[in-house]
Amino acid sequence: MITSYYRRSDGEVASALSPDALRSALASPDGLLWVDLEAASREEASLLSEVFGFHHLAIDDCFNRHIDPAKIDDYGEYLFIIAQAVAYESLARRLETTELDLFLGPNYVVSFHTQPLPFVEELRHRCEANGPELSRSADFLAHALLDALVDDYQPAVEQLDEALERLEELVLQKPEPAILHEILVLKRNVQRLRRTIIPQRDMINRIARGEFPQVVRPESLLYYRDIYDHVIRVEQLVESVRDLADGILSTYLSAVNNRMNEVMKTLSVVASILLPLTFIASIYGMNFENMPELGWQWGYFGILGAMAAVALGLVIFFRFRQWF
Amino acid sequence: MITSYYRRSDGEVASALSPDALRSALASPDGLLWVDLEAASREEASLLSEVFGFHHLAIDDCFNRHIDPAKIDDYGEYLFIIAQAVAYESLARRLETTELDLFLGPNYVVSFHTQPLPFVEELRHRCEANGPELSRSADFLAHALLDALVDDYQPAVEQLDEALERLEELVLQKPEPAILHEILVLKRNVQRLRRTIIPQRDMINRIARGEFPQVVRPESLLYYRDIYDHVIRVEQLVESVRDLADGILSTYLSAVNNRMNEVMKTLSVVASILLPLTFIASIYGMNFENMPELGWQWGYFGILGAMAAVALGLVIFFRFRQWF
Amino acid sequence: MITSYYRRSDGEVASALSPDALRSALASPDGLLWVDLEAASREEASLLSEVFGFHHLAIDDCFNRHIDPAKIDDYGEYLFIIAQAVAYESLARRLETTELDLFLGPNYVVSFHTQPLPFVEELRHRCEANGPELSRSADFLAHALLDALVDDYQPAVEQLDEALERLEELVLQKPEPAILHEILVLKRNVQRLRRTIIPQRDMINRIARGEFPQVVRPESLLYYRDIYDHVIRVEQLVESVRDLADGILSTYLSAVNNRMNEVMKTLSVVASILLPLTFIASIYGMNFENMPELGWQWGYFGILGAMAAVALGLVIFFRFRQWF
Amino acid sequence: MITSYYRRSDGEVASALSPDALRSALASPDGLLWVDLEAASREEASLLSEVFGFHHLAIDDCFNRHIDPAKIDDYGEYLFIIAQAVAYESLARRLETTELDLFLGPNYVVSFHTQPLPFVEELRHRCEANGPELSRSADFLAHALLDALVDDYQPAVEQLDEALERLEELVLQKPEPAILHEILVLKRNVQRLRRTIIPQRDMINRIARGEFPQVVRPESLLYYRDIYDHVIRVEQLVESVRDLADGILSTYLSAVNNRMNEVMKTLSVVASILLPLTFIASIYGMNFENMPELGWQWGYFGILGAMAAVALGLVIFFRFRQWF
Amino acid sequence: MITSYYRRSDGEVASALSPDALRSALASPDGLLWVDLEAASREEASLLSEVFGFHHLAIDDCFNRHIDPAKIDDYGEYLFIIAQAVAYESLARRLETTELDLFLGPNYVVSFHTQPLPFVEELRHRCEANGPELSRSADFLAHALLDALVDDYQPAVEQLDEALERLEELVLQKPEPAILHEILVLKRNVQRLRRTIIPQRDMINRIARGEFPQVVRPESLLYYRDIYDHVIRVEQLVESVRDLADGILSTYLSAVNNRMNEVMKTLSVVASILLPLTFIASIYGMNFENMPELGWQWGYFGILGAMAAVALGLVIFFRFRQWF
Repeated sequence: MITSYYRRSDGEVASALSPDALRSALASPDGLLWVDLEAASREEASLLSEVFGFHHLAIDDCFNRHIDPAKIDDYGEYLFIIAQAVAYESLARRLETTELDLFLGPNYVVSFHTQPLPFVEELRHRCEANGPELSRSADFLAHALLDALVDDYQPAVEQLDEALERLEELVLQKPEPAILHEILVLKRNVQRLRRTIIPQRDMINRIARGEFPQVVRPESLLYYRDIYDHVIRVEQLVESVRDLADGILSTYLSAVNNRMNEVMKTLSVVASILLPLTFIASIYGMNFENMPELGWQWGYFGILGAMAAVALGLVIFFRFRQWF
Repeated sequence: MITSYYRRSDGEVASALSPDALRSALASPDGLLWVDLEAASREEASLLSEVFGFHHLAIDDCFNRHIDPAKIDDYGEYLFIIAQAVAYESLARRLETTELDLFLGPNYVVSFHTQPLPFVEELRHRCEANGPELSRSADFLAHALLDALVDDYQPAVEQLDEALERLEELVLQKPEPAILHEILVLKRNVQRLRRTIIPQRDMINRIARGEFPQVVRPESLLYYRDIYDHVIRVEQLVESVRDLADGILSTYLSAVNNRMNEVMKTLSVVASILLPLTFIASIYGMNFENMPELGWQWGYFGILGAMAAVALGLVIFFRFRQWF
Repeated sequence: MITSYYRRSDGEVASALSPDALRSALASPDGLLWVDLEAASREEASLLSEVFGFHHLAIDDCFNRHIDPAKIDDYGEYLFIIAQAVAYESLARRLETTELDLFLGPNYVVSFHTQPLPFVEELRHRCEANGPELSRSADFLAHALLDALVDDYQPAVEQLDEALERLEELVLQKPEPAILHEILVLKRNVQRLRRTIIPQRDMINRIARGEFPQVVRPESLLYYRDIYDHVIRVEQLVESVRDLADGILSTYLSAVNNRMNEVMKTLSVVASILLPLTFIASIYGMNFENMPELGWQWGYFGILGAMAAVALGLVIFFRFRQWF
Repeated sequence: MITSYYRRSDGEVASALSPDALRSALASPDGLLWVDLEAASREEASLLSEVFGFHHLAIDDCFNRHIDPAKIDDYGEYLFIIAQAVAYESLARRLETTELDLFLGPNYVVSFHTQPLPFVEELRHRCEANGPELSRSADFLAHALLDALVDDYQPAVEQLDEALERLEELVLQKPEPAILHEILVLKRNVQRLRRTIIPQRDMINRIARGEFPQVVRPESLLYYRDIYDHVIRVEQLVESVRDLADGILSTYLSAVNNRMNEVMKTLSVVASILLPLTFIASIYGMNFENMPELGWQWGYFGILGAMAAVALGLVIFFRFRQWF
Repeated sequence: MITSYYRRSDGEVASALSPDALRSALASPDGLLWVDLEAASREEASLLSEVFGFHHLAIDDCFNRHIDPAKIDDYGEYLFIIAQAVAYESLARRLETTELDLFLGPNYVVSFHTQPLPFVEELRHRCEANGPELSRSADFLAHALLDALVDDYQPAVEQLDEALERLEELVLQKPEPAILHEILVLKRNVQRLRRTIIPQRDMINRIARGEFPQVVRPESLLYYRDIYDHVIRVEQLVESVRDLADGILSTYLSAVNNRMNEVMKTLSVVASILLPLTFIASIYGMNFENMPELGWQWGYFGILGAMAAVALGLVIFFRFRQWF
């Protein structure tokens, strides 16, 4: 699906342009053109090369089936930017990333993505409603897209954080083996998120440092620095979520161990008390003819008392040793 | 709550200025103006844009609900600084950080914070009592605030350190599962403290290196270098607290293991001695008609003696093997 | 085996050239020559020094029996490049790397490898079929070889990934000691792959940055940047495979531990219930003359009931403690 | 305690100078002045500001109660150096660091320390005995102090190393829980030593690179490079001591585990042999009226033989399984 | 032992030179002089200062009793190089490093080592046999020494690798506590080797980058780059040996754990089956007067059958739970 918006130099906004209209829009330096390609086929996307004349390596990067790490390529007259948007499923068990590709020229932005992205859709709505995004320059429009993309990370990280905190409570209540698997899955998601953010941070830092003055004007750098600050904040959040995951893992392993220790202590106490008693009973179960105690009047009750004394002594001993 | 102090070029100090007075104070290069906004609403803070003309991105950073990592932004005529103050609760179980935002211009300092900060309050008192802080330049006043902020870290780290040392003693005495949770919570606090300090160190280092000569005069750099040294000292303290936490964790896990080993050894010794004895007794509890030993005069006492010998032999064996 | 292809300035392609033809091909700046040495002996390879005049250190690097880390050496008129191709066996248990050596001059490429490489063979076929690879410049031909080499990493990493995911399922089903060994072997392969890729990335980055303008023309840099992006993508894949391996290891160790805990809990429950019962039975197996209970009419059934009550109480207690 | 030595340009050495004599010594560029302040009070140390005119931030660094990390501050006419001397107690259980502060000017050295340092005392003795240290320049004198300070690390590290090797032997003989605590304490000392050395290395590297030509003359750089080499050597020693500590920790944990395994194996073997035997005996302890074996002439001895056979079989089975 | 070789400008080679001959050799720029000091005393080595005039700090570095980390010092007219040669004992249990010190001037090389080094001896033999090493320049001679030194690492690392692979097989067969100690010793050796190589790599890199053009001529840089590549290869080998050691450690710990689990499972199965049976038998060993089952004709055989059924049921249950 291809949608296009064009703000002319007189402020009028048109949409759904024909290739020829796109060409004439490109030729006018005062206007601002935004073309969004969502899940476009190779044929539909032919305008990337034919109308805009983008390099085939950049176009290949849009169409390859991999999620590429974030990067920025300087093609002189335009920049080619790959960013990664997060698209987490509601169960927070699987964190998906999708690719957003941007071509940023002096008076146009072309965005390309294979899956619908909520923030792009929202911007489309605002453009259709004559929103202010089209009234400024191309680098500002690209900033709006990247800013919304980065802002989407915050709730994703927070959701991970909540999922982990829920797990932490579960672990403290009852450590089940199934929880471990969930912790490890979440931890892997955190790792992946972290590796997604780092190249993104570097990419935005390069823009914010003013490396591409031919496309991003000095007066827009402040806005990219602002995105950069947000990425840094997200990065720190991810780091602390990682700490949380590590802590829960330690807690889980230790809780499992504690339960086991408790079980073993109970077994040890029970066995250490009952084995001596059973031994005493088995002595008087022997069938020797000459066992004087057996004939005593109070022998049985005396032995029961002795057993009680032994049991009590052992209980006191174990208490003293703080076994339970 | 907005408080403002103005030292005129003739040394007089005024406070609680109206917007117009602020504007005329800004216009006089020889004076020094300090405006402090504590928990100000968006409306109250309108003077940031209207009187001072600060950039809306910087003002947004003040009002967003996140604790941003420390940073410094150069807006040409003024610097925008985000620093993080620690606010630890008395139980030392939860280490809170709050944000202090500073706008530093050639002849003014504007400070912004959503929560009351003791060191800012103290500086306000000193200004009201005509203290010396207002008698020097704006960069020196900002240094005083940042220095006090950094100095607050020292007691926080020391309190963490003491809490950990108390835990270490507890661990050596009696390793309880509850202690583990406390260790992990403290460790996470140490991690967070560490991540708070590192961007702060970089931010102060940039000032101390003289990157912003238009606002921080060369003769003030020494004072920022001094703050930098303090941050480094705090950072090293945090590192050694982290080592301490790791060491206590090892001690705890090992102590739990030792107790368990002790329990299991006792069980093993008890069972390994009593199982053979019980077996011997159960032999003579069998009901075979032809068991010659049963008829012997001293058979019973002989078997008792044999049991004692077996028990003694096993005890000696286990002692030799250093089991207990 | 030595194969050679020469595209003359008029576009004609010749193959299987004699040393003299090679020399004249070298002398013509407009043509493009590719010589591929596969498993060549020292004698066959004498043309490296005699025809091309390559430095003996570079030739030694081709013939030494080690797999050298990737590198690039600048000999002024030509570059000497060592790259590492992966050659994984179908069982994915052993990941082999082989060396591909390239000499890249202004109008020629010489490739050297001791083992057959599928992508080199494919390029030879395309050259024989008058494919387009020879129609451009030497740096583009070298790019085609390096690009194919890097692209071969993707399936190798994916195969490792699949092998690990298969192991993960096995681990979750039934953790066998044999799986651990497989995990560790795969993990070591991942480590080695990672160490293979990093120098390769640096090597390609140096070309892509335009460090060798005398051989790699500025208009070709884009293609090397493209390879660089692919290497980065492979590197990230390897990192996430490494995380996966670590996660499986944790899962395995924890699963083994869980099974053990289950076994121990069963033993503890069985022993803790039966030891008291056996003790009770052994009391009434004693042979004292005066044991009033023995004569009671319902003594036996009363004791059986008491035993059942004790057993039931213990079962309820263990359930309450969540032991099973 | 303040001691001062002054070598005049004619080679004469004077000591215990008055403030006025210090001032005139400072004014003569050909002489060399060394003032050492050991545990001086604020009042005694007033000459730092009054006679030498040092910056109050540097003087504050001398008097604050913290052990600051090593650093070097360039005050234009003089350098302010903080170095850390080790002062290990004879028991090697506690490694103390103390601070040595140096002011290094073109013709003077002022050293400040709160605790007596053996190498400073030694230098004082040599100065009193007209030693050669005063005959050269101020940067050479400072080098002598720093060199002696760094050389003191070597025995400290070696003592840690010996303590650890003693522990390793103990661990291999008999792993006691008390040893673990000692290992962890030593490990923490090694960590702290490491963190002490790294800023020191950077500080000396800055001098050795010739960053301060106004105070350290180019012909003295060689001597600072020599100190730098020593620091590097100490750093490597510390690293290998750290490895040693980690190795001992692994050995300890594994040794504890081995002992436990041995205990559990013994219990398992004893129980697995005796439980079946006791079960057999208990069968023939049953009181059924119709148990034909009980009446057999050799029933008892046959059962004893069967028990011996079962026991033997189990022993052989366990040997075969390599349990003991 | 001091040996010296001198190649005059006319190609003649002389050896065993007197101090005067050394001096005149030094004065002739076209010749090439090599002096090797093996285990020389301070007196013998006086020619270092008297004939060559080397700096006393460099000479001190030769004679101090430490193994210094590799480094290179630029004394203007000559370089002072410390390299570390490996000298592994045949048992591969202890990896020794020794120091080789080189003074490299424009027309001479002076080598110093306290222990005999095989590769130096070999070079001496080749010089005595008029080998080609003396026919080129001083930097080439130094390269030959350093290259041979680095090449000696390869077999050392490979021997470590073999020792570890042997251990891996042992671990998989029968994990003995003694093996753990060997693994840890080997691992420590690998660590030390790694720390030996890294400064060496940096040192050679500095030469190869052409930092010392006054002594190492540009046309020799290729040879130093070649040594650099070898060091990199050795470094990678060491890294993979380190991975191997870590993997074996994991395997060992896991194997010990597996054996223990097997032992505990056997105990659990034996006890869980026999405790119920023994309990049943002990019931019918009670002496109650009114126990109707005792009088039944087939009571005994019925109970034996019931016991068999219980045992069978438990065996099936444990099989189902995959306990054995």
